[in-house]
Amino acid sequence: MCGIVGAFSPSRATLAEDIYLGLYALQHRGQEAAGIAWTNEDGEIVCRKGPGLVHAALDQAEMSRVTCRSAVGHVRYATAGGSAACNIQPLTANTLARGSFAVAHNGNLPDAPAQRRVLERSGALFQSSSDTELILHLISHQPERPFPEALMQALGQVKGAYSLVFLHDDKLIAARDPWGFRPLALGRRGDITYVASESCAFDLLGAQMIRDLEPGEIVVIDESGCRSYMLPYASERKYHCAFEYVYFARPDSVIDGVSVYEARKNMGRALARSCMGTLCGSSALTSPLVTGLPDSGTIAALGFSEESGIPYESAIVRNRYSGRTFIEPTQRVRELGVLKKLNPMRQLIQGRDLIVIDDSIVRGTTSLKVARLLREHCGAKGVHMCVSSPPVAFPCFYGIDTPSRKELIAAQLHGDALRERLGVDSLFYLSREELVAAVGMEERHLCTACFDGKYMESPPACGCSRF
Amino acid sequence: MCGIVGAFSPSRATLAEDIYLGLYALQHRGQEAAGIAWTNEDGEIVCRKGPGLVHAALDQAEMSRVTCRSAVGHVRYATAGGSAACNIQPLTANTLARGSFAVAHNGNLPDAPAQRRVLERSGALFQSSSDTELILHLISHQPERPFPEALMQALGQVKGAYSLVFLHDDKLIAARDPWGFRPLALGRRGDITYVASESCAFDLLGAQMIRDLEPGEIVVIDESGCRSYMLPYASERKYHCAFEYVYFARPDSVIDGVSVYEARKNMGRALARSCMGTLCGSSALTSPLVTGLPDSGTIAALGFSEESGIPYESAIVRNRYSGRTFIEPTQRVRELGVLKKLNPMRQLIQGRDLIVIDDSIVRGTTSLKVARLLREHCGAKGVHMCVSSPPVAFPCFYGIDTPSRKELIAAQLHGDALRERLGVDSLFYLSREELVAAVGMEERHLCTACFDGKYMESPPACGCSRF
Amino acid sequence: MCGIVGAFSPSRATLAEDIYLGLYALQHRGQEAAGIAWTNEDGEIVCRKGPGLVHAALDQAEMSRVTCRSAVGHVRYATAGGSAACNIQPLTANTLARGSFAVAHNGNLPDAPAQRRVLERSGALFQSSSDTELILHLISHQPERPFPEALMQALGQVKGAYSLVFLHDDKLIAARDPWGFRPLALGRRGDITYVASESCAFDLLGAQMIRDLEPGEIVVIDESGCRSYMLPYASERKYHCAFEYVYFARPDSVIDGVSVYEARKNMGRALARSCMGTLCGSSALTSPLVTGLPDSGTIAALGFSEESGIPYESAIVRNRYSGRTFIEPTQRVRELGVLKKLNPMRQLIQGRDLIVIDDSIVRGTTSLKVARLLREHCGAKGVHMCVSSPPVAFPCFYGIDTPSRKELIAAQLHGDALRERLGVDSLFYLSREELVAAVGMEERHLCTACFDGKYMESPPACGCSRF
Amino acid sequence: MCGIVGAFSPSRATLAEDIYLGLYALQHRGQEAAGIAWTNEDGEIVCRKGPGLVHAALDQAEMSRVTCRSAVGHVRYATAGGSAACNIQPLTANTLARGSFAVAHNGNLPDAPAQRRVLERSGALFQSSSDTELILHLISHQPERPFPEALMQALGQVKGAYSLVFLHDDKLIAARDPWGFRPLALGRRGDITYVASESCAFDLLGAQMIRDLEPGEIVVIDESGCRSYMLPYASERKYHCAFEYVYFARPDSVIDGVSVYEARKNMGRALARSCMGTLCGSSALTSPLVTGLPDSGTIAALGFSEESGIPYESAIVRNRYSGRTFIEPTQRVRELGVLKKLNPMRQLIQGRDLIVIDDSIVRGTTSLKVARLLREHCGAKGVHMCVSSPPVAFPCFYGIDTPSRKELIAAQLHGDALRERLGVDSLFYLSREELVAAVGMEERHLCTACFDGKYMESPPACGCSRF
Repeated sequence: MCGIVGAFSPSRATLAEDIYLGLYALQHRGQEAAGIAWTNEDGEIVCRKGPGLVHAALDQAEMSRVTCRSAVGHVRYATAGGSAACNIQPLTANTLARGSFAVAHNGNLPDAPAQRRVLERSGALFQSSSDTELILHLISHQPERPFPEALMQALGQVKGAYSLVFLHDDKLIAARDPWGFRPLALGRRGDITYVASESCAFDLLGAQMIRDLEPGEIVVIDESGCRSYMLPYASERKYHCAFEYVYFARPDSVIDGVSVYEARKNMGRALARSCMGTLCGSSALTSPLVTGLPDSGTIAALGFSEESGIPYESAIVRNRYSGRTFIEPTQRVRELGVLKKLNPMRQLIQGRDLIVIDDSIVRGTTSLKVARLLREHCGAKGVHMCVSSPPVAFPCFYGIDTPSRKELIAAQLHGDALRERLGVDSLFYLSREELVAAVGMEERHLCTACFDGKYMESPPACGCSRF
Repeated sequence: MCGIVGAFSPSRATLAEDIYLGLYALQHRGQEAAGIAWTNEDGEIVCRKGPGLVHAALDQAEMSRVTCRSAVGHVRYATAGGSAACNIQPLTANTLARGSFAVAHNGNLPDAPAQRRVLERSGALFQSSSDTELILHLISHQPERPFPEALMQALGQVKGAYSLVFLHDDKLIAARDPWGFRPLALGRRGDITYVASESCAFDLLGAQMIRDLEPGEIVVIDESGCRSYMLPYASERKYHCAFEYVYFARPDSVIDGVSVYEARKNMGRALARSCMGTLCGSSALTSPLVTGLPDSGTIAALGFSEESGIPYESAIVRNRYSGRTFIEPTQRVRELGVLKKLNPMRQLIQGRDLIVIDDSIVRGTTSLKVARLLREHCGAKGVHMCVSSPPVAFPCFYGIDTPSRKELIAAQLHGDALRERLGVDSLFYLSREELVAAVGMEERHLCTACFDGKYMESPPACGCSRF
Repeated sequence: MCGIVGAFSPSRATLAEDIYLGLYALQHRGQEAAGIAWTNEDGEIVCRKGPGLVHAALDQAEMSRVTCRSAVGHVRYATAGGSAACNIQPLTANTLARGSFAVAHNGNLPDAPAQRRVLERSGALFQSSSDTELILHLISHQPERPFPEALMQALGQVKGAYSLVFLHDDKLIAARDPWGFRPLALGRRGDITYVASESCAFDLLGAQMIRDLEPGEIVVIDESGCRSYMLPYASERKYHCAFEYVYFARPDSVIDGVSVYEARKNMGRALARSCMGTLCGSSALTSPLVTGLPDSGTIAALGFSEESGIPYESAIVRNRYSGRTFIEPTQRVRELGVLKKLNPMRQLIQGRDLIVIDDSIVRGTTSLKVARLLREHCGAKGVHMCVSSPPVAFPCFYGIDTPSRKELIAAQLHGDALRERLGVDSLFYLSREELVAAVGMEERHLCTACFDGKYMESPPACGCSRF
Repeated sequence: MCGIVGAFSPSRATLAEDIYLGLYALQHRGQEAAGIAWTNEDGEIVCRKGPGLVHAALDQAEMSRVTCRSAVGHVRYATAGGSAACNIQPLTANTLARGSFAVAHNGNLPDAPAQRRVLERSGALFQSSSDTELILHLISHQPERPFPEALMQALGQVKGAYSLVFLHDDKLIAARDPWGFRPLALGRRGDITYVASESCAFDLLGAQMIRDLEPGEIVVIDESGCRSYMLPYASERKYHCAFEYVYFARPDSVIDGVSVYEARKNMGRALARSCMGTLCGSSALTSPLVTGLPDSGTIAALGFSEESGIPYESAIVRNRYSGRTFIEPTQRVRELGVLKKLNPMRQLIQGRDLIVIDDSIVRGTTSLKVARLLREHCGAKGVHMCVSSPPVAFPCFYGIDTPSRKELIAAQLHGDALRERLGVDSLFYLSREELVAAVGMEERHLCTACFDGKYMESPPACGCSRF
């Protein structure tokens, strides 16, 4: 998971500052590193990047002084490639003939290692362990083709999830894979065109969202306007990532026509409908309350409360200062566990049944700690964990950083065994069908592989011998 | 407004780390500076302090290596005294005869400048412009008295708000003024005794709250135990600060027997009862929703929603990364206004009537900006501002950093004029009586001077010639 | 040992930058901390200070933006008072009646603890453990007197070494003790008047040195000019510090009429005269060479070479990058010893007799290490240590940071025992008489207490009851 | 100009700390950036690098904790390639088949851009603008060959100056070009083998120098020992850089059998012989003195003094604190000129004729400023500039960062015109023949192209079609 932004202005403008703003709006998509690249007056690409949040990785003062016509940026959440400095994006490349270019990538290319091996056998030298670099090499292996054509050829050779923004020759180029895994949208403010992972970046930039990029679309933006091309190998079926709606995207974004806030509220409502019978039937709940695990469970919790009539309370508040407070993992600090980050309202919780809404359970460690916190530290009578998505039982190969099956608790344990391991009195999940209905998208266009293991099967219709 | 913590352990323990944790729990009480002082093996007082949040001002790694028997800490929110480094607390003093001592203070002493003038006329030399230093000088002017006695005499000479923690002679001493303006409580974990501004610090420390300090109580904690003394000049009437419940304290704290969460929820309920008639009577509301201005309006908004039956939505979310992102106040960043910090759910808000709950309006600038944001940026049909406290029309002299009357918008404008200035469709406040009832404390023991201008009038019965 | 600078300009000028330059020129007098104070437009004193070298302690960019009419600065080399932040100078004090003032001090007041005890008994509260603060308290105890008069009275009560610069009421005040222990000089550039510890600061500032301050002189500099006063308690005999010429001052300075460079060269010549007989007589030297221990032994080494005819070589060069390179004292780094800082020319040294000139031997640890380095690492045939001052056998109470007698190697060992301990083949010192002659000052006006233990005996003729 | 170090130990040792020490010893060869790479337990290469001096670029504490069997390091003085982060060395590359490798390079490859163009035409993608990367690509284009063989092939394709250290497969590989432009030597401590640009690094490391690498030699060091190979294309004539002896190397190093200290002293002696006649004949010198421009002119000045009999004085001392003091180039600071860095002994200089020895004059700006400083600021009667090398009139293409001919003052002006431009009374240079004699090497093996423009002409006898 990562976030990308791009900007083009026909006349020089403070686009690096705009990218900085856009990355700040997309900070939730990656906190490990950030970077911005722009084209300077001499047509060279300048790049600044570093580890940490946007403000730590980049110098806002410097960014606000830069004027340019094209710029791109990236916030990184490690997927393929380690956390080494050489993997921080934008990646840049430097050619004597075609000048330099920069790229920022959101997604993942499962075939990259195999293809890289082939290229290396013919002498290619990679600088990073990032799969994004593969695309750069595929382009450089077509030195005679003009850039956009070389890019289209290159993309025809990769199969996987990619939303991309490129800088080349003072142009901005954006591309989205034919399956539509990761979001990518176009926006505009005055005569400046933006590309961003989520529409919330446009809200902050004061821009209007124009539309999502189509799966398989490439857009080239320069002073002569905005030209759109389609990759010649379309996929009839889409694979829009369901997890964006469940957890990853910001609730004020609208992705592929669906409001994330609304989708989450629907998930909460559906969850209430499916579990209220059992929950109330099994045993008498003592002055029950609904609360969400902050921040991602809050909206579904509101939907659950609305549907069930059980009052919602802000019973667990995320501590807003937890950021860099405990760098040193001393014994005392380790013992704090989730108390470091979460302030539970002990007075409110004591003696009551808590219905806790979480968006998903991956490794299960947080759920376990929260259950213990509520019961032992706060004196809850019962802890009922309701998850607004199905059990995560399969790894994602398309850009969400889920661990291997062995570490996915729902791949290892089921039913009561799982409930007991988490130390909760009840445990409910949303079914896949309820999730699809809550998002409101045609079922076949939603990727739910992390829930059901149904990955994209057939290669794209690209006729490329490499596959 | 500031936060203070103290700790004493009969055997050496990592108390500096405990104070660090305690200050982190009290970070909401002051973000300008932080400091920790402890008594080292040689009986000397060591002090570390600096500007910024706890983690920036102090080195957690160093704090976790210190072992000691007594320690105090302070988070600062500038009140009296400028922001100069010499005013950061704990303040320390150094005497050849009586050794060194350290003090951390939450509160404000309105008479300090007058008394300082008197002391200077007899040769006293002040290092800071902080009113806390006055107490140190009053103690040092009684060189022959033992420390706790000199402290009691000194406190008999000041009139104002003070919750204090002292280090002296490897003892921890805590004191609360006879009026009980600022909170101060005792806690315990094993054989370690803690003192803290709010009970939420004990929750993080894994300590049990024992009780609040009585107004006028001095507690001396050392290896022989915990001895309590009462100042000889009691005040029959208390002045517990109402604003702690409205805004300042953390909702998971319990102060002078009252749960802050519960008090806030009551305020929201009372607000709904008093304004729903007018609100629904005046005009038809279009699919109204209730939301709170984050983070302080959320709980009252839940109470309002519960009482009114109008659904609560998380329509405005605080951006969790806003901390240090925009250090450079460029034109572009200034224009962002509250969008820098608040993410409104535009899809949710569009075309609807919003009932926005804020805890208080001081200068009115944020309210104004939020109203404009909701209406212009998000397309709200109506913005109805409901404030869960009375109009703030008088400055506080007892430790809350309110501005002068000239800057208090409710001291300048009333009724429709005020509503229009804020750019809202409706504007409701809680009455003083409703506020008192919501807190649930006897009216005469609650200080509501910032709402009604009724300050503590008579000097304390201390018989001290200085008054 | 410390360095002080002051500046006054009748019209606003960038004096803080001038002080920064002046402190840089005096950096050799103190590397532990630095600070600058100036009077701002509102007549308040602003102070910046911190640990480390001038550039680390202070922000050059900020200093260059300040304009003011009066400013002072200090570089600190810990003497009395620990290294705590509260002891970094300038010290400032803040009075409601008389406004604020700032002071920077070079010297040491041996009686300060006793006097402080007296003041504390009458209620005074000290902020620091620095003896300089005593002077501030003595002034504040005369609240009714105008400042310069109060200062004169205060100085009449202290006995010790002080060169002082004060800021008060937008005036610059400089004072030198009646014994003239530490240097202090007046300079001018255009209409700006400077005061500095050494004339080398004027050279950097582009100022002309006017004259040294007289022992016992107080100079008040403001827009009406420069007025000089003499303290009423003069000392007939002066105590100019001999160690300034031997080691401490910069060689391009002229102090009390004596060129430091010339004095050092004379010391080297005298040393050659007194030891060449023995050195050449005792045994045959193999292609001997003279070298100085960098940087302080170089000039005397040139004098020695000139007088003896033995060639001077730059056989040991100080590594110019050693500053902050080895923060972590690992085993490997400890074993490097003096090699971290000194680059010996092994090719040059091998098989030869080295006459090494050092300015003084205090603890003897460096001499010991250098001798071993030259012999074992570089293969010197003989190491002959010639010291351009007498044995340091007594602590200094007047501002030079010498250790106690127990740590002074020349107070513990003599003659052959000392030579053997240092691991050298020969060891020669300059006699006290030769030193006095090399400086060229009347014997009774030179303080050589660290060599002969003859401290200033009688109290000053001040008639002050306190002594 | 750059400095490189490598280390191999048969058992794990703190080699990263050794490399840190070695780079510190070579700090004079490059202050722009520094980096260290080592092979970790998993056989992966870890690299740390950054801008600035060794201690700023690298974390000594981290380096001292690393244990490994092979490591290399680099200090950078920008030559080819800009100062961008991607050009800081060691450069690393990452191949799936052959694992990763790292390289550090001292030297310059004039043909690199042309060869890069060829490689790019066949699809190669470069990450940096450094000429060092060319070697990596030449290796990667031979994927089937084992590493050392591929390296030999690659080096056969480049013509220029290179001293290289490689890490690959937990081996250390060192290579020196067939012309011997840049120095490279082998050392040993116990069972650890070192490679370094200069022998002074071995002195600090406590290692014994074994020998210089032969021009054209490749040494592979691993647990089975140290194997030496010769490149098949030897050059009969060598091109050892004369400028290393004149200015660049540290005086305590011995390079290709010649002591740098001794060579410099010889240069000073030869200079005295050639110019004393004219100097004393032309006019009467007033109490003349010889001094060196610090630090590089000192040793030649001692040789000059010895030969001429004119006394040497330490008349200009380098200020040891000038490092980071004046970051802000304010007007006041600019006016300081060389006074920022040099402390002239005004008392000593006044009224006398100064013979100033400088090692070389490149742009002439420093000479000009020094002459003015001595005359105007210090009152010198005459300034006689004697340069211990011939006029620098041609750019270097082999690793010394000299400017273009247009900026070389001796390429623009000659004789009296040059003397007048520099503002000196006399100006003398060493002749090329005298320089060669002073170094004491066979004339045909010394590269003096920067003085006479005679660059290496014919391609190496490598039979490689690329040339």
